[in-house]
Amino acid sequence: MPKESSEGLTATKSEDISTWFEQVCLKSELADFSKVKGTMVIRPRGYHIWQSIQDYFNKNIVDKTNTDNAYFPLFIPESFFHKESKHAEGFSPEVAWIDKDLTKDGERLAIRPTSETIMYDSYANWIRSYNDLPLRINQWCNVVRWETQATKLFLRSREFLWQEGHCVYETEKECEKETLIYIKAYQKLAKDLLALPTLIGRKTEKEKFAGAKTTYTIEAFMPDSKALQCGTSHNLGQGFAKAFNISYIGKDEKKHLPWQNSWGVSTRLIGGTVMTHSDDSGLILPPKICKNKLVIIPLLFKGKEEAVSKKANELKKELSSLNPILDDRTDTKPGYKYNEWEMKGIPLRVEIGPRDLEGKSAVVVKRNTKEKLTIKLKDLKKEIPKVLTQMHDELYKKAEDFLKSKIIEVKTWKEFQDAIKDNKIVKCSWCDTTECEDDIKDKLNGVTTRCVTLDSKKASGKCAHCGKDAKVEMYFSRSY
Amino acid sequence: MPKESSEGLTATKSEDISTWFEQVCLKSELADFSKVKGTMVIRPRGYHIWQSIQDYFNKNIVDKTNTDNAYFPLFIPESFFHKESKHAEGFSPEVAWIDKDLTKDGERLAIRPTSETIMYDSYANWIRSYNDLPLRINQWCNVVRWETQATKLFLRSREFLWQEGHCVYETEKECEKETLIYIKAYQKLAKDLLALPTLIGRKTEKEKFAGAKTTYTIEAFMPDSKALQCGTSHNLGQGFAKAFNISYIGKDEKKHLPWQNSWGVSTRLIGGTVMTHSDDSGLILPPKICKNKLVIIPLLFKGKEEAVSKKANELKKELSSLNPILDDRTDTKPGYKYNEWEMKGIPLRVEIGPRDLEGKSAVVVKRNTKEKLTIKLKDLKKEIPKVLTQMHDELYKKAEDFLKSKIIEVKTWKEFQDAIKDNKIVKCSWCDTTECEDDIKDKLNGVTTRCVTLDSKKASGKCAHCGKDAKVEMYFSRSY
Repeated sequence: MPKESSEGLTATKSEDISTWFEQVCLKSELADFSKVKGTMVIRPRGYHIWQSIQDYFNKNIVDKTNTDNAYFPLFIPESFFHKESKHAEGFSPEVAWIDKDLTKDGERLAIRPTSETIMYDSYANWIRSYNDLPLRINQWCNVVRWETQATKLFLRSREFLWQEGHCVYETEKECEKETLIYIKAYQKLAKDLLALPTLIGRKTEKEKFAGAKTTYTIEAFMPDSKALQCGTSHNLGQGFAKAFNISYIGKDEKKHLPWQNSWGVSTRLIGGTVMTHSDDSGLILPPKICKNKLVIIPLLFKGKEEAVSKKANELKKELSSLNPILDDRTDTKPGYKYNEWEMKGIPLRVEIGPRDLEGKSAVVVKRNTKEKLTIKLKDLKKEIPKVLTQMHDELYKKAEDFLKSKIIEVKTWKEFQDAIKDNKIVKCSWCDTTECEDDIKDKLNGVTTRCVTLDSKKASGKCAHCGKDAKVEMYFSRSY
Repeated sequence: MPKESSEGLTATKSEDISTWFEQVCLKSELADFSKVKGTMVIRPRGYHIWQSIQDYFNKNIVDKTNTDNAYFPLFIPESFFHKESKHAEGFSPEVAWIDKDLTKDGERLAIRPTSETIMYDSYANWIRSYNDLPLRINQWCNVVRWETQATKLFLRSREFLWQEGHCVYETEKECEKETLIYIKAYQKLAKDLLALPTLIGRKTEKEKFAGAKTTYTIEAFMPDSKALQCGTSHNLGQGFAKAFNISYIGKDEKKHLPWQNSWGVSTRLIGGTVMTHSDDSGLILPPKICKNKLVIIPLLFKGKEEAVSKKANELKKELSSLNPILDDRTDTKPGYKYNEWEMKGIPLRVEIGPRDLEGKSAVVVKRNTKEKLTIKLKDLKKEIPKVLTQMHDELYKKAEDFLKSKIIEVKTWKEFQDAIKDNKIVKCSWCDTTECEDDIKDKLNGVTTRCVTLDSKKASGKCAHCGKDAKVEMYFSRSY
């Protein structure tokens, strides 16, 4: 039986997106705050999304790329971090350590912020010859990063869930090729499962992962034009292999250093999906990640209750593969029920009353557009899956149109500044230097490089900021 | 391509089960040690077993009991532990805390050893009325218990993976009923998925979970007659509800304290399964939890390579639903291959050579019995699944026969002592007092109560140790 409705949102998406987002997450029961500062509870409705991502991921990425899932320890010895100096430097500000009393007899232990080091220590033992390569391992786990910035449900918290893939290859070429395969697979996941359009590209030297040679990213853009980094794939080069003594005997019977990559997506994807699609009535999700695809609401007018109730129950059975909720509460008015299930993001509402029975049809309301369809009862089973697919496409199209409308190509620094003032995402030719990057960030209070387009080799002309020769095509924006 | 073979075991199951078990886990590549003392790496072959358990569990237990998966924080504020005093007392020796420097502004944070307290703090906010009950939530996660005893792969480690279910009910009756449903579901999982026979029963007051009213357990018995507690389900009564201020407004419009249970199984199940079924040639697993159900080994005699190789490849395709490995290495002898795949516990070996081709058949070798079957090539697809099912049943039967042969019913203290000396599991009438329990443990160096049989109400006569009136029927043994 459904529970009592949560109340409506008090903030709007257009006026106060931050409060609105928090209210949507809380009131749709995706998540809750926890008493532990900076951490969150992922409630069943939210965790179901994560399970959908896991299922999709295991089937379409892990299995299809011959990757295996495994599990490595939560704790990492301090010395492991220091083996790769840039990695240590990058993560040290946010590492959480365990109580020194527990490790009096040994070295300090960190709670993993990421698992490169603990995994590669094992890899060094496991890899002997070219026969052991490629080695592709993925891990689903929790990681801890002791954020000092304000935290935000799903988007930034001191503990989050993620997957991290870690592969080892014989050649640079193979490594680079697969690093790109994984980031493209992420972009496809975002599109096909979450209806989330993203830009794909390379991070700058300054923004790349600590210890990586190259970092690729997919970036979604939220309704406030801030970028949300949604997934990354790092070509680690040979730095970690050197640091962790990973080597293999090649077909030439000589010892070689292998090449490595690592790649990850996290529960942050849930936040991006919610923020992109939802509205002032509450949660909107692409139907594929919803457990209950519809709610059936019988309209119980006096004298007709029995026939309507009977049909509602029949429909529930008939549509059982879609996990319908039957909201047959008698102490709650239909309007109240509508609001509640809109808040909770159930994709379709099927209303059935005496008049519908007479017409042998039902009114089906789409959560995303609130459009009402009249569908013959006998066609519901066939039609609803089509409507759900259509809804996914509509959500993607809407988000993609928004993204396209936000991107503005600029040539001059004046145009650049105007675009940022106008809350746009800037696309421009750029010199690809850290100096220029820092300069822009300083001048425009937090505007950062997002990614170099993958076909950037075509970049020409002058840098839109410093006027030097352009090397790449870059996206700039504010970000989460 | 398969990798180079690991070498054989040097210890035997009958002479040195502890070393043998460690070697099986390491050499079959289920697990590895990690540099962090007391923790382990679960390698892909081992993690596949855990995923099989998760899949079975989500489908047959979570979904069927209307439970929802969710995720709560890794960290627990110190004060939460102290709200339920017995719970605090029970867990305090093995709690790992995080570095005090991180929590200067607040209270100490533990790394969860179990999640009752952090979950029930949320439950208190979520539960308002009887409409919200029953609330059934399960969580898959890692937990940390800072063991001071020697650790053992899968059986005892400072971090392990588990699921913990936590439900809230209106009535005592409903709570008790479902507490038993969950423990029985665990017994069924152990039997149907892991081919593991277990005894089911109630723990004593002394051995029950810290904070519980009653603890139910399933206990497997390892080849050395030591019990392995494999899963527990706790009726928590109303103690946690009181401590965490969980209450609900009943149909009577009055405020009530609800009843709660919690239940869990862990990666320890993997250890029990491996130890029960494996032999001196290496790993044996029930086929359901194996990713690769068979390995195809073409016997490549000179001049006939092409025909044999072609057929082996055809078979690989034909049997693809069973995920066969095709071991077509040419630099490795068949005997070496046989040893390697026996070590790694692949359920079936399909040998195909020129003579088999002539006879249009293949030799199929069962890993558990090493029995050789000759099966017509055209029948393989139909016959292999039957053989796999039969193997599961054989493994269960063998383990069950062993268990039955180990249990000995005793009436007197003399018989009790003799049975323990003889490495048996004692079943006897017992007084159910902590004093007697402590006495037996002292006298017989570590022999503990395992569980009270569920139909114990029939117990009669005198306690086999102290001679007082018996209250229950109890199993005693040594344990892991």
